[in-house]
Amino acid sequence: MEKKIITISREFGSGGRTLGRLIADKLNIPFYDKELVDQVAVESGFAPKFVEEHGEHSPSSSLFSYAFAPQGVPGIMNGLSTADFLWNIQCNVILQLAEKGPCVIVGRNADYILKDRPDALHIFTHADVAFRAERIVSRYGESEKSPEARLQEKDKRRRVNYQHYTGRTWGQSQNYDLCFNTGVLGIEQCADIVVGIVENSRK
Amino acid sequence: MEKKIITISREFGSGGRTLGRLIADKLNIPFYDKELVDQVAVESGFAPKFVEEHGEHSPSSSLFSYAFAPQGVPGIMNGLSTADFLWNIQCNVILQLAEKGPCVIVGRNADYILKDRPDALHIFTHADVAFRAERIVSRYGESEKSPEARLQEKDKRRRVNYQHYTGRTWGQSQNYDLCFNTGVLGIEQCADIVVGIVENSRK
Repeated sequence: MEKKIITISREFGSGGRTLGRLIADKLNIPFYDKELVDQVAVESGFAPKFVEEHGEHSPSSSLFSYAFAPQGVPGIMNGLSTADFLWNIQCNVILQLAEKGPCVIVGRNADYILKDRPDALHIFTHADVAFRAERIVSRYGESEKSPEARLQEKDKRRRVNYQHYTGRTWGQSQNYDLCFNTGVLGIEQCADIVVGIVENSRK
Repeated sequence: MEKKIITISREFGSGGRTLGRLIADKLNIPFYDKELVDQVAVESGFAPKFVEEHGEHSPSSSLFSYAFAPQGVPGIMNGLSTADFLWNIQCNVILQLAEKGPCVIVGRNADYILKDRPDALHIFTHADVAFRAERIVSRYGESEKSPEARLQEKDKRRRVNYQHYTGRTWGQSQNYDLCFNTGVLGIEQCADIVVGIVENSRK
């Protein structure tokens, strides 16, 4: 079965987004990450910044966020929390993007949303704390919190969000076709492996 | 860092042993599985069959097995249960095998035992139930139990054993450098990927 859709889930700082961009460039197919967020934002009426902050976070952290719903939105939310409302829209957007043709989708629980597509290849990336801490500081700069605390906080939110909406354990290998320790293997090598798999799947 | 030691942990029926054999053949390095069991057996004084059955099983299932300890062994077990006694010997054997030189080691929680060796590459293999059920029937034949029940039982034992001795979750991607869905990727392709990684690590 030809693999056309690549989903990438990732620990914060493990380079999943960079890996996705590399794969998309090498295969010359669309890459959806910020673009996906923007599309969700447009469809929901939420500000892009709000969607980006809440799209992968724990549902409970959004319980207080009804107040931030954009004008006109509460009426169409049908009693859903902001998090559940965004989740429904994200599911639809991701299903539509996959229908459009080959692509790479990073984050947003796309592995689960597209689990029934046999032409999808699901990837998870992780790395040890030292590798990721150094990476987020060099990419996103320092902050008041220690890099380790930032990693822990962001990963916790992704874990809780994934558990809540999929009933699965985030990072459990059986949910993915391939899991990489990017710190050990290197992001470039991981990209080459995925490209090789996609090319082999066409034979 | 050159990767010299390959450990493979696996869901029952996912082809981890076949993968290990392929990698060892392609890299022309020793392969330890049954051989390892025999070595453990010799060091412990237990019958090879007994070691094979208890080496990866849940500790609790071995609580009644003092009675099976070979003559002379109870005296050197220092009050350890059979399972703990075997675990200690397995740790020592695996550490010694890794010291001897490049090799592939399948099972026996070798990923954990060798977690501090930077020249070790840790792999986990899994696949969906249909793929594994067909595989165990074609390799090991039918039995009174359904293939699904056999998979579930054996995996549960491995999971409990791993959790007990390592404190980690079996199959959680972060414990391994690479996880493969062998049903999706094919065992031969997984072997080529690993061989490529080992060869790249020498450059």
